[in-house]
Amino acid sequence: MHLSDCSINTITVRSLGLRAVIDEALARGVPAIAPWRDLLATVGTDEAARMIRDSGLQVTSLCRGGLFTAPDEAGRRAAIEDNLRAIDEAHAIGADCLVLVCGPLVGKDLAGSRAMVRAGIEEILPHATAARMPLAIEALHPMMVADRSVITTLGEALDLADVIGSPNLGVVVDAYNVWWDPRLEEQIRRASGRILCFQVSDWVVPITGQLSSRGMIGDGCIDLSAIARSVRAAGYAGPVEIEILSDRWWSQPPGRVLDLALERFVSAA
Amino acid sequence: MHLSDCSINTITVRSLGLRAVIDEALARGVPAIAPWRDLLATVGTDEAARMIRDSGLQVTSLCRGGLFTAPDEAGRRAAIEDNLRAIDEAHAIGADCLVLVCGPLVGKDLAGSRAMVRAGIEEILPHATAARMPLAIEALHPMMVADRSVITTLGEALDLADVIGSPNLGVVVDAYNVWWDPRLEEQIRRASGRILCFQVSDWVVPITGQLSSRGMIGDGCIDLSAIARSVRAAGYAGPVEIEILSDRWWSQPPGRVLDLALERFVSAA
Repeated sequence: MHLSDCSINTITVRSLGLRAVIDEALARGVPAIAPWRDLLATVGTDEAARMIRDSGLQVTSLCRGGLFTAPDEAGRRAAIEDNLRAIDEAHAIGADCLVLVCGPLVGKDLAGSRAMVRAGIEEILPHATAARMPLAIEALHPMMVADRSVITTLGEALDLADVIGSPNLGVVVDAYNVWWDPRLEEQIRRASGRILCFQVSDWVVPITGQLSSRGMIGDGCIDLSAIARSVRAAGYAGPVEIEILSDRWWSQPPGRVLDLALERFVSAA
Repeated sequence: MHLSDCSINTITVRSLGLRAVIDEALARGVPAIAPWRDLLATVGTDEAARMIRDSGLQVTSLCRGGLFTAPDEAGRRAAIEDNLRAIDEAHAIGADCLVLVCGPLVGKDLAGSRAMVRAGIEEILPHATAARMPLAIEALHPMMVADRSVITTLGEALDLADVIGSPNLGVVVDAYNVWWDPRLEEQIRRASGRILCFQVSDWVVPITGQLSSRGMIGDGCIDLSAIARSVRAAGYAGPVEIEILSDRWWSQPPGRVLDLALERFVSAA
C-alpha cells in the first residue's frame, strides 16, 4: 500500500502526545491518524479538536466506545453515559467512526454478556445517529473474550449489526483479530458497504499477554496483502490504520517504530 | 460430574511416568487415562500396552497424530509416516481414538495449510480404518494457528470431517479451545454421534504463552457444566479428560494437582 493510504493509530506510539503524533504524521506525509480517548483527555477534547482541524489530517476512527457489560445496572448505566461522551468526542474531532469494543465477559455468561452488548448499542444508537457518528463494531480475537470482547468473529459482528439494523452501524476489520477465521473471505464480502475501519499489524508468537503481543507488519504470518485486497474489493476506500499494541515496540523509540512501520506498510501490506 | 466419568490426560501431570499415572488413577478410583506419545516412548509401546492392559484402565485417547503440514514434500511424507506409527501405537494400547492436531500454518498460506491437513487425513485414513482406530480432529483455539493448528472451530473440524466423509472420522471437543464460539451449541448438536473425546480445563488470564496458560477447572470463566450438558446431550457417553497444559500447575507437586483437579471435576464441571 502507499503512504497516502495510511493512518497512524496512536496506540502504536503511545508514549507520544497528540501534538507529537500530528507532527510525525505531517512530517511523513501520512494523511490520517486514529487517536485513543485517553490521548484526547491529556489536552481536552476542544483543544484536541482544534489541533486536529488545524492539521488537516483525516481521523479514521476514535478508539473506543463499547465495554457495555457490567455485573449490575449501575455499571451498565455508567457505561452508557461514557459511550454518549465518546460519541460527542468523536463528533468534536471529526472522526469517521467510533470503534466499539464489545465486552468483556461477565462471570461465565457469554449469552447474557452478548445480550448486554446488543442492548448497549441500541441505547446509544439514537445519539450517534443524531450526531451523524457511525458506530463500528469490532470483533476482537477469541483470546480476548474474558477481558475485552465477547464479539469474536467478523460474522458475529455482522450478525449483531443485522439484528440491530441501522445504517449508522458498521464494522471494523482488524486483521490481527480475524485473520485466522476460515470464513473470513466470505464475511468480508458480506460486510461490503459496512466496513468503517480497517486496521493492520501482524501475528507473532509467543503470546506474552493477550492484549499487547502484536507484531510489526511483515514480521508475522498474516497475509495482509490478501486481506487488504478483500477489504478494498468490499468497497472500503479509506486510509488503513497501523495499530500495533506491543510491549516490545512500546519499549522502542517511537520515531524508529514509525519509520519501520511505514516502510513495512508500503512494502509488506 | 463424578469421578467415574473422569479420565486423566497425562499432560496434566507431565512429570509423572506412565507407571505413576496409572497408579494414581487406580488409587483415586479414576477409570481412564489419556497418554501422550512421548510418555509411551519412555517405556516403549509394548511395555506401555502391557501396563495399561494389566491396569484395566480405559484409554480415552492417544495424543497425538496430525501435524501434517510442512513446507516440502519430504516433511509431509515424514508426517504421514509418523501418523501411521501413531495409529499403531493407539491400537496397541487400546485407545478409543487418536487425536489429530491439524497444523501448523506453513508460511502465510492458511488455505494451502488446510488443504495439506485434508490430504494428510485422507492418506492415513485407510490404515486407521483397517486398525479400527477412530481419528478425532481437534479444533484448537485460534491463538494457536501459527504454531499448532489451522483448524480453529468445531464447525471447521466438522466441515473437514464432512468433506472427507468416513465413519472412522470424528471430532474432539476441548472446552478450552472452543468455549468462546458463538456457534458452539449448534455445532455440538451437529457433532452428535461424532464426538470421540471431550476435554476440560479452564480459561484464565493473562495468557503467558499460547500453549501452556490453561487454568485449573473452576478457576476461570468457562461454563464447563453447560458445555458438558451439551456434549452429553449430543450422545458422548465416555469419560471426560482433564487436560491442563499449564506452566503454573506443572510447577506444583503432581499429586496435589490431581487432588485439586479431581475435587474440581466433581464440584465445578
